[in-house]
Amino acid sequence: MQHVDTLIAARWIIPIEPHGSVLDHHAVAIRHGRIVAILPEKQARERFTADQWIERRSHVLMPGMVNTHTHAAMSLLRGAAESNDTGYWLRHQIEPLEERWLDADYVRDGTELGIADMITSGTTCFADIYLFPEATAQVVAATRMRACIGLPVLEQSTRWAESADEYMDRGLLLHDDYRDDPLITTMLAPYAPWAVSDATLTRVRRAADELELPVTMRLNQHAIDTSATGERAFARLERLGLLSPLLLAAHMVHIDASDIDRAAAGGISIAHCPQSNLKLGNGVCPVPALRAQGIALTLGTGSAASNNDADMLDEMRTAALLANGVRHPGLDDAPEDSDAPDDIPPLDAHDWLQIATLNGARALGLGDAIGSLIPGKWADLCCIDLARAHTRPVYNVAAQIVYSVSREQVCDVWVAGRAVLTQGRLTYIDLDDVLRRAQLWQQRIGGARHTQ
Amino acid sequence: MQHVDTLIAARWIIPIEPHGSVLDHHAVAIRHGRIVAILPEKQARERFTADQWIERRSHVLMPGMVNTHTHAAMSLLRGAAESNDTGYWLRHQIEPLEERWLDADYVRDGTELGIADMITSGTTCFADIYLFPEATAQVVAATRMRACIGLPVLEQSTRWAESADEYMDRGLLLHDDYRDDPLITTMLAPYAPWAVSDATLTRVRRAADELELPVTMRLNQHAIDTSATGERAFARLERLGLLSPLLLAAHMVHIDASDIDRAAAGGISIAHCPQSNLKLGNGVCPVPALRAQGIALTLGTGSAASNNDADMLDEMRTAALLANGVRHPGLDDAPEDSDAPDDIPPLDAHDWLQIATLNGARALGLGDAIGSLIPGKWADLCCIDLARAHTRPVYNVAAQIVYSVSREQVCDVWVAGRAVLTQGRLTYIDLDDVLRRAQLWQQRIGGARHTQ
Repeated sequence: MQHVDTLIAARWIIPIEPHGSVLDHHAVAIRHGRIVAILPEKQARERFTADQWIERRSHVLMPGMVNTHTHAAMSLLRGAAESNDTGYWLRHQIEPLEERWLDADYVRDGTELGIADMITSGTTCFADIYLFPEATAQVVAATRMRACIGLPVLEQSTRWAESADEYMDRGLLLHDDYRDDPLITTMLAPYAPWAVSDATLTRVRRAADELELPVTMRLNQHAIDTSATGERAFARLERLGLLSPLLLAAHMVHIDASDIDRAAAGGISIAHCPQSNLKLGNGVCPVPALRAQGIALTLGTGSAASNNDADMLDEMRTAALLANGVRHPGLDDAPEDSDAPDDIPPLDAHDWLQIATLNGARALGLGDAIGSLIPGKWADLCCIDLARAHTRPVYNVAAQIVYSVSREQVCDVWVAGRAVLTQGRLTYIDLDDVLRRAQLWQQRIGGARHTQ
Repeated sequence: MQHVDTLIAARWIIPIEPHGSVLDHHAVAIRHGRIVAILPEKQARERFTADQWIERRSHVLMPGMVNTHTHAAMSLLRGAAESNDTGYWLRHQIEPLEERWLDADYVRDGTELGIADMITSGTTCFADIYLFPEATAQVVAATRMRACIGLPVLEQSTRWAESADEYMDRGLLLHDDYRDDPLITTMLAPYAPWAVSDATLTRVRRAADELELPVTMRLNQHAIDTSATGERAFARLERLGLLSPLLLAAHMVHIDASDIDRAAAGGISIAHCPQSNLKLGNGVCPVPALRAQGIALTLGTGSAASNNDADMLDEMRTAALLANGVRHPGLDDAPEDSDAPDDIPPLDAHDWLQIATLNGARALGLGDAIGSLIPGKWADLCCIDLARAHTRPVYNVAAQIVYSVSREQVCDVWVAGRAVLTQGRLTYIDLDDVLRRAQLWQQRIGGARHTQ
């Protein structure tokens, strides 16, 4: 008999690898935070002893989801800015509030609220971009969450840094601080094409290549990004050497065939943020055209100020529905001289589960560490109870998760084998206290809004 | 002091009428199933005594939602048919299963599962279209739900009726059976334009006019509906006198400006079914163009075989996101000679709440009975707890419901003053038994599917 820390038996397990697999009555064995084995429950009982046996008889167990584009601290502004015009929303609603309130305390309280939102909906890793990233990282560490912390880079002066060089220097110091952390990694996060000079982007590329750091940037979100000279963002990034597998481009709504060709040639990944893109009136990222060129897709919620939550289950559903039903005239049909296969099958529910887990992990440079349930990877898991009127009968477990499950069916979540949610209760977060602090911020911010 | 049956105090109340109103710390007084008053909680304590005082300190109370297009019995097929091609889905996946299994027992068990799905997500009235409508009505009565039961009409013979005349006769008998029922009404439901002759549609119109019955029909769902002579469905319905305020047209994806003009001139309502339309690959109903012509919009989920649930909260969210972010080239811009106002403001969260409640009630002929919280109307209510990480802080209660709330935050539901869901538990439905029967059907149906 081999001894492990935890054995979790579930009615169904979707390991993501191999693709499309659904295991009945299996168990996951966990030791020192990592997956040791996945095997039929009966065999698990013969082979292992465990400190803790967990049985989930009407549940599906799968990897925790990886949210590849967030600004968790903005959870404090959920519902505070409801314009559906991105430009107005950002310049007249969000930026004035951030200029008035944004500091390390705000980031700490907002990030903890955001992490509570994420854990309770089955997310175990998020890629965050915001100012005061050291405050974000502190909260991630305290809550035992996993995150890839964006190191913000822009030319403009803010409360956090005054020049592009200062952003880079502070960011790289933070990277050094977490170099050996098992839960926290970092990525370089130039704010947007128009916010960073060629010289700064070149410094970003050099740092990324040297440290093997992912780079993430919002691209073509609410209009085609072009420089002052009219150069398209994708042409510029290609010229500067940034179109590589290290790049994770977020949003990508307003793109044309030339952008897609360049993205595919560079091997970049794209963080699809369907709810934020729709809510802010930007439109729909042309997923079928990206797939036709073999571009890897991930999912992100954006901030709670434009979503208005961090629910990846809901985000998967919206993404799947849009890919089925929305056409992109001019992009959906491959050009006649294209090498792309003529007939790419539509994405099915298993594809969406992979996009929300393994694809996200890979885009963040964590493909060997998380995103699927295979021995050796960290035990980052979520467990979803299907015993509800709206998730029975169960002909198709994957379709059930993508199209029917709601977030409160997530009953347990583990990060590196540690239970951060148990039977619906957060274990490292004092939820009442988090909600109380959120309400205090609302009173301050909301009061100021109404007297303006 | 006036005595009432029930007083419900909530942190927020959204009565829908007046539009946009949010009441703080108010209470609803209920007597004999109807709303007596809505007033500040303090005044309610001075003015009323009550058999039952219910306090919901972190909750919003609003009218139960009205789902205007369902086929509840198809809940038994949730996830059984996952094609995103409507024609293939219907002819090769759904119809063979229905031909093999559909009978009154199937309809009873499926409808009860569907009603459990609806009540637990805050719906208090649904408009259903399916064969064996008397079985549907029996379950509605037993579960104390409210429904408008569609009386199916088609030419084709089925297990329920052999000819259009038999459908009409059986349907009108059912109508008579429930003529004085406080919870059950009926509507005429010709299956689709291509499934009914001119003579039958004329008989439908006459019965509708005589009995003041709503008429509902799927229109232009996955392709433009035309007759054998090439006449567009809207032209045909106009010629036959069916384009009137009694008509509730469902789906309406593939429509052009002439259809919209005819729909507006007739004063019909449209049941927008965004999730089903997307999932089956049909596209998006052009909501902004319908609004520009003043056409009343309602919401429907379609069946759980194409959605895959009956969650109106989720449906509202999808509808709101699509209306913000999806364009309809050729329809969004009013023609230059149009009388429509140039600048119609985008739909906001309060508009969506009204669409999901009062607009639905009106389209079903129940506008004076339900859909808003005003004295004299039935107390059809749902109560949603906002004390969650993903629904705090609360700057904007309506936006919270449309964009952030998940279905399991619905903790109490009343139909005509009777609690059908209390603190998350169904009171007239034995959920374990319903889930057990659903699983039995799955074993039968799923087994047959796999051996085909």
